[in-house]
Amino acid sequence: MSGLERYAGISRPYKSGYINVHPIQRGGILSEAARRALLEFGDGYSICDFCPPKEARLDAIKKPPIASFMADLAKFLGMDVARVTTRCRESKFIVFRMLGRPGDTVVVDSLAHYSTYLAAELAGLRVKEVPHEGPPEYRINPEAYAEKIEEVKRETGKPPAVALLTHVDNLYGNLKDPKPVAKICHEYGVPLLLNAAYTAGVMPVNGKDLEVDIIAGSGHKSWAASAPTGILALRGPLAEKVLARSKVQGDWSGRRFPNKELALLGCTVMGAPLASLVASFPYVVERVQRWEEEVKKAQYMVEQLERIEGTRLLGEKPKRHTLIHVESEGFHRVSKTHKRRGFFLYEELRERGIVGVQPGLTKHFKLNVYGLTWDEVKKVAEAFHDIARKYGLSVH
Amino acid sequence: MSGLERYAGISRPYKSGYINVHPIQRGGILSEAARRALLEFGDGYSICDFCPPKEARLDAIKKPPIASFMADLAKFLGMDVARVTTRCRESKFIVFRMLGRPGDTVVVDSLAHYSTYLAAELAGLRVKEVPHEGPPEYRINPEAYAEKIEEVKRETGKPPAVALLTHVDNLYGNLKDPKPVAKICHEYGVPLLLNAAYTAGVMPVNGKDLEVDIIAGSGHKSWAASAPTGILALRGPLAEKVLARSKVQGDWSGRRFPNKELALLGCTVMGAPLASLVASFPYVVERVQRWEEEVKKAQYMVEQLERIEGTRLLGEKPKRHTLIHVESEGFHRVSKTHKRRGFFLYEELRERGIVGVQPGLTKHFKLNVYGLTWDEVKKVAEAFHDIARKYGLSVH
Repeated sequence: MSGLERYAGISRPYKSGYINVHPIQRGGILSEAARRALLEFGDGYSICDFCPPKEARLDAIKKPPIASFMADLAKFLGMDVARVTTRCRESKFIVFRMLGRPGDTVVVDSLAHYSTYLAAELAGLRVKEVPHEGPPEYRINPEAYAEKIEEVKRETGKPPAVALLTHVDNLYGNLKDPKPVAKICHEYGVPLLLNAAYTAGVMPVNGKDLEVDIIAGSGHKSWAASAPTGILALRGPLAEKVLARSKVQGDWSGRRFPNKELALLGCTVMGAPLASLVASFPYVVERVQRWEEEVKKAQYMVEQLERIEGTRLLGEKPKRHTLIHVESEGFHRVSKTHKRRGFFLYEELRERGIVGVQPGLTKHFKLNVYGLTWDEVKKVAEAFHDIARKYGLSVH
Repeated sequence: MSGLERYAGISRPYKSGYINVHPIQRGGILSEAARRALLEFGDGYSICDFCPPKEARLDAIKKPPIASFMADLAKFLGMDVARVTTRCRESKFIVFRMLGRPGDTVVVDSLAHYSTYLAAELAGLRVKEVPHEGPPEYRINPEAYAEKIEEVKRETGKPPAVALLTHVDNLYGNLKDPKPVAKICHEYGVPLLLNAAYTAGVMPVNGKDLEVDIIAGSGHKSWAASAPTGILALRGPLAEKVLARSKVQGDWSGRRFPNKELALLGCTVMGAPLASLVASFPYVVERVQRWEEEVKKAQYMVEQLERIEGTRLLGEKPKRHTLIHVESEGFHRVSKTHKRRGFFLYEELRERGIVGVQPGLTKHFKLNVYGLTWDEVKKVAEAFHDIARKYGLSVH
C-alpha cells in the first residue's frame, strides 16, 4: 500500500480566526478542561486502568470518577439513573429495543431526527408520526399525541410501546413543551422519551419537572464533548427494564454475564470522548444558566437576517433556540446568475471569516449562534448584510 | 450542585516512567500522529465540516479523507468494504442483527468474548458453543464447528445464521487458524465472522487469504486509536445485506432515508477517535510487519515467568500472541500470608515501575508485552524474578 502518509497529517481547515456557525457544531466545542482530558485519556482503553473486577462495568469505575459522574449527570438532568452511550441514536435504539417488541409501534413527532426513524426500524418497531402544522412555523400540537395514540390502539389493539418527542428539532430549531405531551402519554400508560440532543447540555433540562420518563442526549452535540458520546437518563421503574442485565448462557460452557447491561452490550465509551464529557461537566452545569442570553443572540440574528430582501425565518417565532433555519428567495435569486452558483454564499461568508453554512445552499440554510460573543454575532449579521448589498439585495 | 471541580482535572496515574503491561491496552496506545489528530478533531462533530449533502454519510466524506481511508482499510484487511463502527461488539451485533432473524442460531467458539454473547442476545439469536479442549491449552478443534452446525440443523431444521471464530481470545491469547473453520462453514453455506479484536491492527490479517466473510475489529484495542472505534469489514455479496439501507417511511410525512445504512443508524464515530484511527493507519500498516518480533518477546516472557516456582502459562504453547495468561500457585501462596493479600504483586510491580497487572490477582493474571522494547521486556521479567525471590520462591 502506498500514499498513506497523508492520513498521518489530517487536519481541519478554518480553525482559528474564523467564526464557525455550523448548525450542529456549536454545542460540541470542547472546554479547555476537555481538551486536556482528551490528551490525558487518548490511549485506547484509557478509562479502564482500574476497572473493578467484580462489577467489571464502565459505570462502576471510581478512578477516574465515572461512577460519581454518572450519578451527578442523572441528578443534573432531574433523573434517577444515567448512562453514557456511544450516541444519542444508540440511546433511542436501546429504549425502543428494550421497551418494544417487534411489530409494536412508537409514536414520534414528524420533526424527529432521521436517526429516530432508523432506531425504531432497527428495533423492528412501526413508526406512527404526529403531524406538524406546516409552514412557516411547523408547530406540533400536543393534543395530536392523544389522537395518534388512539389511532395506534384502534389499528393494533394496544397502545404504542413508547412515545418520543424531539425537544428541539434539527429542521427548524423549534422548542416543544414536553409537559403536556407527557401528561397525555401517561394517561394512556405510554412512557415518553425526550430527545434532548439539542437542549440538554446547552439549556436547563430537568426531566422530573418536565415529567418525561427518559432523556436521550448527545455529548458531541451539546455537552462540549468529542464524538461519539450519547446520554441515556431514566426515571422510575423503567430504568430497570431499559438497563436489564444479560441473561444469555453458554450452552456448553455455562458462561453467564449477569453484571452486564444487555442493550449497552456491556461497556460503551471506554476512552477519550467520555473523558471529555466528564471534564466539561462543570463548565456545562454553569453554562446552561446563561441560556437566555444565547436566545437573545439568536433573536437578534433572525431580526438582522429578515432585514434582507426576500429572507425569512422558518420555524416558530419568536425563536427560543439558537439553531436558525433561513429561507432566502433573495440569495437564491443571486445564485441563479452567479458563476459559482449556490456556492457564492459560502465563499463570500468565508472571505469574511465565517464558516459553517453548508457550501452550495442559498434558498434554505441553517446556522447556529450558540456560544458566539455578541461581537461575533454582530460580525456575522453584518457579513450577511454586506453580501446582500454587494449583490443588489436591499437591506431594510 | 457542588464539588464538580474535580471532574475538570481528571487525570491518569502512572503515565510516564512506568511500563504498562495491561492486557487490553498495549495495542491501543496512540501514535504521535494520532495524538495530534485527536486535538485537531477534538470538537464534537469535527469530521462533519464538509459532509456531502447528497450522500450525507460518514463514509462519503472526502475532507478529511474518510472515504479513501475506508477503502484503504478494506484493502489492507483483504476485504471489499469497510466501515468504522463504535465498537467491535457493535460490529458483531450489526452482523447478527442483519444476517439472523430472532430465534436463529449463531455458532461461536467457547473462548468468545462476553460481548459476542451479548451481541447475539441483543439480536435475539440463540448461542451454540463450540467446545474447547480444556486446560492447559484450551484449544479449539475446527472439526467441532461441523459437529455444532449439524447439531443446530438437527435441533432447528436449518443451519445457523452465522458462525463466529475468535481469532485470538482474551482469555488465553490463543491464535486460531480461521481457514479450516471457514472451509467447514462454507460447506454448510454459513458465513464466518472473524472477531479480530486482538489481531487485526497488530499482526497481518488478510480476510481473503483466511477465507472469512466478515471481520470485526477494535480500534482502541489494536489500531493505536482512542476508544470507541470498531471496524466492520466485509467480503462478497454479504456486504449489501449487512449494510442494507433504511427502508422506513414516515406514515404521515412520507419522509425516507434511503442513503442511510440501517444497522449503523446512519453515522457512527463522527469525531476524535475516528481521526486517531485514520492518523495511526500508516503506522499500523507498517507495524504489523514486525509481528514476529513481538511474538518472540512474548515467548521470552513466558520462558522467564515459568522459571518461577509454581508458575506456568495457560493457553497454547508455544505462544503465538502477546497476550499472556499466567497461573501462579507460587505467588498465590505468598498472597495468603502477605498483609496486603493479593495486592502485594500489583504493589511490588508498581514499585519496580510496572503497572497493568490487575490489582488483587496472583493465582491467575494476564499481561501483554506488545510494543515493549526488549529492554522493557527484560525489565518486566527481572521484576517478576526479583519479587519471587523476595518472597522465597525459587527461580530456576
